[in-house]
Amino acid sequence: MGASKLNLRGYTFAKETSLKAFQDYYPDSVSHCYGCGRLNTQGLQIKSYWDGEESVCAFTPWPQHIAVPGFIYGGLIASLIDCHSTGTAAAAAYRAEGREMDTLPPYRFLTASLQVDYLKPTPSGVPLEVRGRVEEIKGRKVVVSSTLSAGGIVCARGRVVAVRVPEGLMPE
Amino acid sequence: MGASKLNLRGYTFAKETSLKAFQDYYPDSVSHCYGCGRLNTQGLQIKSYWDGEESVCAFTPWPQHIAVPGFIYGGLIASLIDCHSTGTAAAAAYRAEGREMDTLPPYRFLTASLQVDYLKPTPSGVPLEVRGRVEEIKGRKVVVSSTLSAGGIVCARGRVVAVRVPEGLMPE
Repeated sequence: MGASKLNLRGYTFAKETSLKAFQDYYPDSVSHCYGCGRLNTQGLQIKSYWDGEESVCAFTPWPQHIAVPGFIYGGLIASLIDCHSTGTAAAAAYRAEGREMDTLPPYRFLTASLQVDYLKPTPSGVPLEVRGRVEEIKGRKVVVSSTLSAGGIVCARGRVVAVRVPEGLMPE
Repeated sequence: MGASKLNLRGYTFAKETSLKAFQDYYPDSVSHCYGCGRLNTQGLQIKSYWDGEESVCAFTPWPQHIAVPGFIYGGLIASLIDCHSTGTAAAAAYRAEGREMDTLPPYRFLTASLQVDYLKPTPSGVPLEVRGRVEEIKGRKVVVSSTLSAGGIVCARGRVVAVRVPEGLMPE
């Protein structure tokens, strides 16, 4: 289908990646997360998109995000997997209802549990790609499994159980 | 044994807490971790200590470390549990050999897997306490389970499988 690509934050996505990120649809009141909130000016501000059946997020760690020089610290990897997975959970919940993310009611997910397996040292200085896949949607629960890769090599695997925030508990 | 207390980073520990943190013993070459390296000037610089059979770390999140206003984001909680657990693994490995952390060879641990269960929203603006307990030491592997509390209430539980970096792979 040709070589058309989209360049976001220095990372090249396949053309079919949508332009507006999951996190761009979060209501302002729940957009302050250090990992994924677009209103947290000091945070990571990760952005997640559909890429077919998978969700994808690219993030280039900051110079200080190292474990030892040349490699990324585990807490950042956990953060990326966590926030990308809750974003994927929200997007999947809208999709399961056949509606767009800018329709009401707004859905936002919290992490109930997070599992990360660190398979290889993750190099610094390159964009990291987190890819999520929805394993289960049941009631308010969504389970997302994911990989975190650098240069096409999977360095970590994640699994997040995300739970939708009840409407009455969404901040105003 | 009396009410003598030690105040560290605004948090009150029991008297028997030692004064030099596990991370203060790490060789310079492995002291750059964003979570726990004393040489990472932009990092969290967490400090962990023995408190009897448990290890303890107190950290007051920065204002930007929120999920929603008033509550801490999950990635920070994962980071604190991760770095406190690898520190605890190192300290436990020295202790198992009956030697102090300033003796050779130096031991440093990496995370093989991290599990975090988020039990309650973790409030912002207060010190968080991570308490670790060594579940298993076997060869180069140490398993540490932990709780993360705010104001005495357990908000998250963690489990880390840590693996000792082979001596030949320790950075110079």
